[in-house]
Amino acid sequence: MGKVQNYIDDNRQRFLDELLDLLRIPSVSADPAFAGDVKKTAQAVAKSLKAAGCKNVKVNKTKGHPIVTGERIVNSKLPTVLVYGHYDVQPADPIELWDSPPFEPVIKKVRGHKQGAIFARGACDDKGQMYMHVKALEAMTKTKNVPCNIKFMIEGEEEVGSVNLEGFIKKNKKALNCDVVLVSDTSIISNKVPSITTGLRGLSYVEVEVSGANRDLHSGVYGGAVANPLNVLADMISSLKGKNGKIKIPNFYDDVLEVTKEERKAMNNAPFDIKAYKRELKINDTMGEKGYTVLEQTSIRPTLDVNGMWGGYIGEGAKTVLPAKAFAKISMRLVPNQDPDKITKLFTKHFKSLAPAGVKVKVTPHHGGEPAVTPTNTIEYKAASLAMEKTYGAEPIPQRSGGSIPIVSLFENILKVKTILMGFGLDTDDIHSPNEHFGIENYFKGISTIPYFYEYYTALKSGEKVDLSA
Amino acid sequence: MGKVQNYIDDNRQRFLDELLDLLRIPSVSADPAFAGDVKKTAQAVAKSLKAAGCKNVKVNKTKGHPIVTGERIVNSKLPTVLVYGHYDVQPADPIELWDSPPFEPVIKKVRGHKQGAIFARGACDDKGQMYMHVKALEAMTKTKNVPCNIKFMIEGEEEVGSVNLEGFIKKNKKALNCDVVLVSDTSIISNKVPSITTGLRGLSYVEVEVSGANRDLHSGVYGGAVANPLNVLADMISSLKGKNGKIKIPNFYDDVLEVTKEERKAMNNAPFDIKAYKRELKINDTMGEKGYTVLEQTSIRPTLDVNGMWGGYIGEGAKTVLPAKAFAKISMRLVPNQDPDKITKLFTKHFKSLAPAGVKVKVTPHHGGEPAVTPTNTIEYKAASLAMEKTYGAEPIPQRSGGSIPIVSLFENILKVKTILMGFGLDTDDIHSPNEHFGIENYFKGISTIPYFYEYYTALKSGEKVDLSA
Repeated sequence: MGKVQNYIDDNRQRFLDELLDLLRIPSVSADPAFAGDVKKTAQAVAKSLKAAGCKNVKVNKTKGHPIVTGERIVNSKLPTVLVYGHYDVQPADPIELWDSPPFEPVIKKVRGHKQGAIFARGACDDKGQMYMHVKALEAMTKTKNVPCNIKFMIEGEEEVGSVNLEGFIKKNKKALNCDVVLVSDTSIISNKVPSITTGLRGLSYVEVEVSGANRDLHSGVYGGAVANPLNVLADMISSLKGKNGKIKIPNFYDDVLEVTKEERKAMNNAPFDIKAYKRELKINDTMGEKGYTVLEQTSIRPTLDVNGMWGGYIGEGAKTVLPAKAFAKISMRLVPNQDPDKITKLFTKHFKSLAPAGVKVKVTPHHGGEPAVTPTNTIEYKAASLAMEKTYGAEPIPQRSGGSIPIVSLFENILKVKTILMGFGLDTDDIHSPNEHFGIENYFKGISTIPYFYEYYTALKSGEKVDLSA
Repeated sequence: MGKVQNYIDDNRQRFLDELLDLLRIPSVSADPAFAGDVKKTAQAVAKSLKAAGCKNVKVNKTKGHPIVTGERIVNSKLPTVLVYGHYDVQPADPIELWDSPPFEPVIKKVRGHKQGAIFARGACDDKGQMYMHVKALEAMTKTKNVPCNIKFMIEGEEEVGSVNLEGFIKKNKKALNCDVVLVSDTSIISNKVPSITTGLRGLSYVEVEVSGANRDLHSGVYGGAVANPLNVLADMISSLKGKNGKIKIPNFYDDVLEVTKEERKAMNNAPFDIKAYKRELKINDTMGEKGYTVLEQTSIRPTLDVNGMWGGYIGEGAKTVLPAKAFAKISMRLVPNQDPDKITKLFTKHFKSLAPAGVKVKVTPHHGGEPAVTPTNTIEYKAASLAMEKTYGAEPIPQRSGGSIPIVSLFENILKVKTILMGFGLDTDDIHSPNEHFGIENYFKGISTIPYFYEYYTALKSGEKVDLSA
């Protein structure tokens, strides 16, 4: 394993340059205008997998964006790890808030990253974290140190709900056969306090449209008598939550798995500085469900957030229009054992019931995802924990995260395997925001840690003990 | 007066073509990108005033868009009428809802307009209605039938609050000296039921900004603990009105002039078909302040409408962002004796008080305007009423309108004269909306009626009687 780490050290600059090249292709999966770039990115990923020693590399067509697969089979008797990642990225909007162009990566100093960070859309989520696996494989194959079989499945639709992934996995169940799935698409607590994500929130995402009259109206001539869809939509959204932060959709909390007092106590022992949190976000106070701490509000409790809203005149100056339509994108983060389809149905029924007679309401579901919890008493969890302890010098804390990676339950349901969420980003990396970045240290820590995971996982699976001092 | 009407008949096609030319210049005052076109329009108006026989025509510079003035002085002993109008237009957004380009006028058949209508931004509001006065003057000067002194003041900032008009009038008080102001910027009940606007609502218009964290956040990582400005803004807007449609800003109704039972009864005798109203707007029901009819809600009662709202991700597909900011444009129509400045202050104070600790709120006032009521027992009202009776064959109904023309109280306060609101548009002309139009019949009815106003006004001022059969 020493050879692997030496190889990584010797190829540092190239490993960095290759990631920057990948970040230059704007693979925004949500916007059809970027479809060509998404395809180009898939081909670039395939090329780099081949160069890293993958065999049988394919750019698999889907109804949407392609899925890249490849494998390095060492011995059929050894365990098999399936690496999942995604090469697509979030839209860069609002572009005007970026300090440098989102698809022209630059390395800059930033608080929390002593060696600087790469600023670009996708730097962390997930091109950077996905590419760590490609480079780790390269280091292992070139030094002839591949401890087990490794398969890759890198998709291009994670940011739009992985709509074609389920069909693909079902169709290629045999080829994707494995013992565990390894994903780097989450974060650690800090560069000094490593952690492994053991819980994820699910997601229900809808778009709503409220329509009033058949056209935009003059607010003087009609104002006061005709329903204003913007006022009505504000009323409807406002009524979805109570003053205590509780969501008022009937039966919304029915399936929520209540966390025990002991678990909540342990959770709140994680290092968390509320003053630093508020200072970093420049807010005077937090705002959430009463009776829960910030750590609880963002992990074990469901939420309802308006992700976008628009209608009427939004240009410069004043226009006295009574708009014909108003729109909002609304998402709910879900916790075990809430079912996204059930929640979407409950939302739709309730939201429509809120509409006054003067308007019409349309609810369109976007993608959803099931919540998930990973057990910490498995061989795969132990292997990941030991690998991080080896490179960080500290045992990682198991942590439940607020985000959603819907594919985790997909793997569990179809491939019948557990997923290890061993991410290396930080919560402050501004993924999904302007100025997304990924620490240089984090990138290389990932590349160094991944080979240890394979080594320890293979050892533990065969009943061997792991010696971290070796 | 027969010669005047013959001249109008003989020049019909040219009168129409010239208006179409004027409509081709996109004089959108709200958008700085159109500043050059606004100036070009001012020069076109000045040219047409000169051609119509106006003397002393000037394009007066202001800090914003220019004000065009001119005059036709016949005899200092005769009364003087000041014609006010505006050559600027509303923005054309949303452009995609126009059936033909907004600045390429076309004449099409449309319900309610037997002779067809001109479709273009500004066709009715107010280029078309303003230009009727230019053409009426031309008909009078060319046939040597100018019964009194006529002055013109045509501005280019009505749609952005006439911000530089007050200063201009104060500075040119002497030159603008007159007995009455005549404005065509309102509507009639229908082409069969003429009406004169005797009351106008005032306006308070504000833009609000709600800020949460210092950047857009990932709704999974921070959702549930950090204030979402869109949810908060929806809450704040929703709380501004009660379920009964009453506005809940403290002291908002303090100065509202309550209308007597008799006046309300008379008002509700105006021809109004609620079924046709709903059918035309394609709505199942109206929605407004409880206890008042639609005619009352849109004239004698104040309103609060969101004219625009935006924030977060508003593109295609789904983005799980917790936005840093949310915005809305909110306007309140006011009735006598509400004061726009006072109302803006009450709104601002109340709105800021609604903000939870997790957000910051900014309120920026846009233009406002005072409400106004015109008496019907004056010589000028009688002259306008008789002029319309002459051309429509029916006495016009005095009507209070829901719209706002803030300059009416400006004229009363500075020039100490009353304003006659003799408009010729229809409420269904879609002013401020896509597919704005102005009936060919309405345009020529205006040109024909205006000379009678001058004749009857001059006669009544000198104590003569008017014989409509003459």
